[in-house]
Amino acid sequence: VKQFWLIMFLCAGAFSQNAPPDTLVSPEVHPDGRVTFRIRAPKASEVTLAGDWMPANGREAMKKDAEGVWSVMLGPLPPSIYLYTFSVDGLTVADPVNPRVKLRSRTSASLVEVPSDPPALWQVRDVPHGKVEIHWQRSAVLNGETRWIWVYTPPGYAKETKRRYPVLYLLHGSNDVAPGWTLAGNANLILDNLLAEKKATPMIVVMPYGHAVPFGSPRELQAKNTALFEQYLLQDVAPLVESEYRLAAGRDNRAIAGLSMGGGQALTIGFGHLDRFSAVGAFSAAVPADFETRFAGALSDAKGTNAKLKLLWIACGRDDFIWERSKALDELLSKRGIEHTFRATEGAHTYTVWRQYLGEFAPLLFRPGR
Amino acid sequence: VKQFWLIMFLCAGAFSQNAPPDTLVSPEVHPDGRVTFRIRAPKASEVTLAGDWMPANGREAMKKDAEGVWSVMLGPLPPSIYLYTFSVDGLTVADPVNPRVKLRSRTSASLVEVPSDPPALWQVRDVPHGKVEIHWQRSAVLNGETRWIWVYTPPGYAKETKRRYPVLYLLHGSNDVAPGWTLAGNANLILDNLLAEKKATPMIVVMPYGHAVPFGSPRELQAKNTALFEQYLLQDVAPLVESEYRLAAGRDNRAIAGLSMGGGQALTIGFGHLDRFSAVGAFSAAVPADFETRFAGALSDAKGTNAKLKLLWIACGRDDFIWERSKALDELLSKRGIEHTFRATEGAHTYTVWRQYLGEFAPLLFRPGR
Repeated sequence: VKQFWLIMFLCAGAFSQNAPPDTLVSPEVHPDGRVTFRIRAPKASEVTLAGDWMPANGREAMKKDAEGVWSVMLGPLPPSIYLYTFSVDGLTVADPVNPRVKLRSRTSASLVEVPSDPPALWQVRDVPHGKVEIHWQRSAVLNGETRWIWVYTPPGYAKETKRRYPVLYLLHGSNDVAPGWTLAGNANLILDNLLAEKKATPMIVVMPYGHAVPFGSPRELQAKNTALFEQYLLQDVAPLVESEYRLAAGRDNRAIAGLSMGGGQALTIGFGHLDRFSAVGAFSAAVPADFETRFAGALSDAKGTNAKLKLLWIACGRDDFIWERSKALDELLSKRGIEHTFRATEGAHTYTVWRQYLGEFAPLLFRPGR
Repeated sequence: VKQFWLIMFLCAGAFSQNAPPDTLVSPEVHPDGRVTFRIRAPKASEVTLAGDWMPANGREAMKKDAEGVWSVMLGPLPPSIYLYTFSVDGLTVADPVNPRVKLRSRTSASLVEVPSDPPALWQVRDVPHGKVEIHWQRSAVLNGETRWIWVYTPPGYAKETKRRYPVLYLLHGSNDVAPGWTLAGNANLILDNLLAEKKATPMIVVMPYGHAVPFGSPRELQAKNTALFEQYLLQDVAPLVESEYRLAAGRDNRAIAGLSMGGGQALTIGFGHLDRFSAVGAFSAAVPADFETRFAGALSDAKGTNAKLKLLWIACGRDDFIWERSKALDELLSKRGIEHTFRATEGAHTYTVWRQYLGEFAPLLFRPGR
C-alpha cells in the first residue's frame, strides 16, 4: 500500500516534481461565511486581494507569516460565488492553489463559493438535472474558425422524442467565454431548480462565444464586434441549434438575453429582429450609445413594438458603473411608450446579480397566454 | 461609435478597473514553432519557466526588459499542446494573460498549442464533430455529493434513433479533472478525426472525475481512492450512462482505459471485472504495486483470461518517471502468457504521449471479428 501511495504521489507531482504539492488551503470558507485567503510568496514585499464583492478599486491588504504565507480573513460574505485575484508585488494572479478558475478571454480569476443553507437557487439541489452539451462548429461567418457552443437541455429532454421546446439565447459579457454562464453563472442549476419547482417552462438555452472579433483587438475592430456576432449568431449558431434540437417554431418560442456586453448584443439583435424574437433580457447591459437612432422606427411605433415584444426585461444594480445606461434606457422606453420592466436592484457589475436576474427572468419566458 | 467602444472597454475592465487590460501577448507561437513566453513582473528578482516538454526539474531562465516584462523565446517545439507555468520569486503561477488554462484538482497551469500543418490528429479538422455532454449526478456512493461526468457522443448520435453504441470509460490522471481528456487531451477531436477517416468504430466515451477521495487527502485516505472510485464508477456512473445512452449490450461493447492514476484504475477495475469489460488500456499507468498478488487468479489462468481480454494495451514513454512500472507489467504479463501489446515510445509523462496513445488505442477497440 505504501508503494502504491508513493506512485500516486509521484503521478500527482508529475510536471511539478521540483516542488512537492503544496498543502496550503485557499480559499477556506468558514461555516459563518467568513473566508480566509492564502498565498505562499515568501519573497514578495506586498500582497493584496481584490474581490468582486468589494467596491470599485477596493483591495484588502494581506499579512505575511513566518513561513512566507500571506493571508487575510474577510466577511462574513453573503452566500454567492465571488471572483477574486491576488496582486503580488503588482502582478495580478488567480489563486495558485484554488482549482475553481473563472475562465476568461484573457487573464483568469479564481472563484470562491459561500454556500447558503438551505441551498440557494444557484446551488446544486437534489432535483433532476439537465445537461450542458458542447458543440464544435466550423463558422462560415468567422472564416472557417471552429468555435464551441454550450447548450443547456432540461431534464428529460433526451428521453422525449416528440415534444418541442422554446429556446433562449443567453449571452455573456466582455472578456468572458462560452462556458461562463455555466461555470460562473450556474445557469444550468438555476434552470434545474426553477423547473423542479415548476416555476419555468422547460427550454433550451444556447450559450455561444460572444467575441466574434478577437477580444483585445484594436478599438476600430472591436467596435464591429456586435455586428459580426449578430451574423455569426443568426447564420451559424441558430441554424445548428435549429437542426440539432427539437425546437418549437415561431418567434413566440425564441428569446434573447445577455449580461453586460451580451446585454447590449441582446438589445441590438433583439430589436433588430423582432420577426425572430419575442422576448429580450438586458442584465447590467452595455446599452449601445446609438440605440435611440438605430431603432427609431421601433421606438416611434409603440403599438406595433408592444404587440411584438411580449417581454422586455431590463435589470441593473445601483452600484454598477454602467447603471446610468440602464436608467437612461428605462427612461427612453417609458417616454416612447414601450412596455418593459426595469428592475433596479442592489449590487454591482458581477455574477452575483446576474444569477439573480436569470432566476427572475427565466420564469417570465414562454408563458402561455402572453 | 467611440462612446460605444468606451463602454465595451469599461465592461471588459469591470473588476479590474484599477488596472486597464494588459496588452501583453503570451504565449506567442511563431510560424516556425518557436514560442515566446512573457510575464509582467517589474518587482520580481527572478522569473523562470517550467514546461512539460522539458526534462524533469528543467527550468528556463527569463530576462527582464526595461518595462518589467520578463520573456524567453524557446523552440522550435514539435507540434503539440504543452503545459507550462512561471515561477516568480518562487511562486508558481499559470500565465496571467493566457486564457487557455489547464484545469486541475489543485493548482492550475497554462496550455500552449503549437499547431501542425496539415492539422495533426488531435487538432480541429474540417470534419463532422461529435458533442461532449456534461451530466450532473448526485452520487449515492459519495454520500450525496454531486459530481459532473463528461461524455463524448460521436457525430450523428443524436439524429440516430435505433443504433446502439459501444462504450469506452476513459480515466484521467492524478490532480486532473473530468474535463481533462477534453480540454487538454482533445479526446473528442481525436475521435472525430479517426471517425472521419473510418479508422475507428463510433463509440460513446465516458470521462468521470477520478478522485473519489478528495485529492490532497492524507495518504491513508488517498490509498483508498481506487477502491472507492471503482464503486462510484460501477454503481453511479455506469447506470447513468446505461440509462441515458443507447449502449450496445454485453462485455464485448465495453472498454476501460486511463492515463497515469487512471491507467492504474483501468487495470484494477478492468481485471477485477472481466465479466464487464473486454478491453483495457493503460497509458503511462500507475500500475498498482499489488497487481500480481491481487490478480493472481487471472494471471495464472492465461487461457481463460486471454479468451476474455480481447485487447490489453499498455503504453509508456521511455523518459517517463514511472516507465519501470509499465516495463515490469509487460514482463509479468509475458511471463504468465497473458496476451497484450506493449508500446514503448519516446516521451515522458505528458498529454503529448497520451493524445498519441488514444489515437493508436481507439482504432483497436470494438472491431468486429475480434
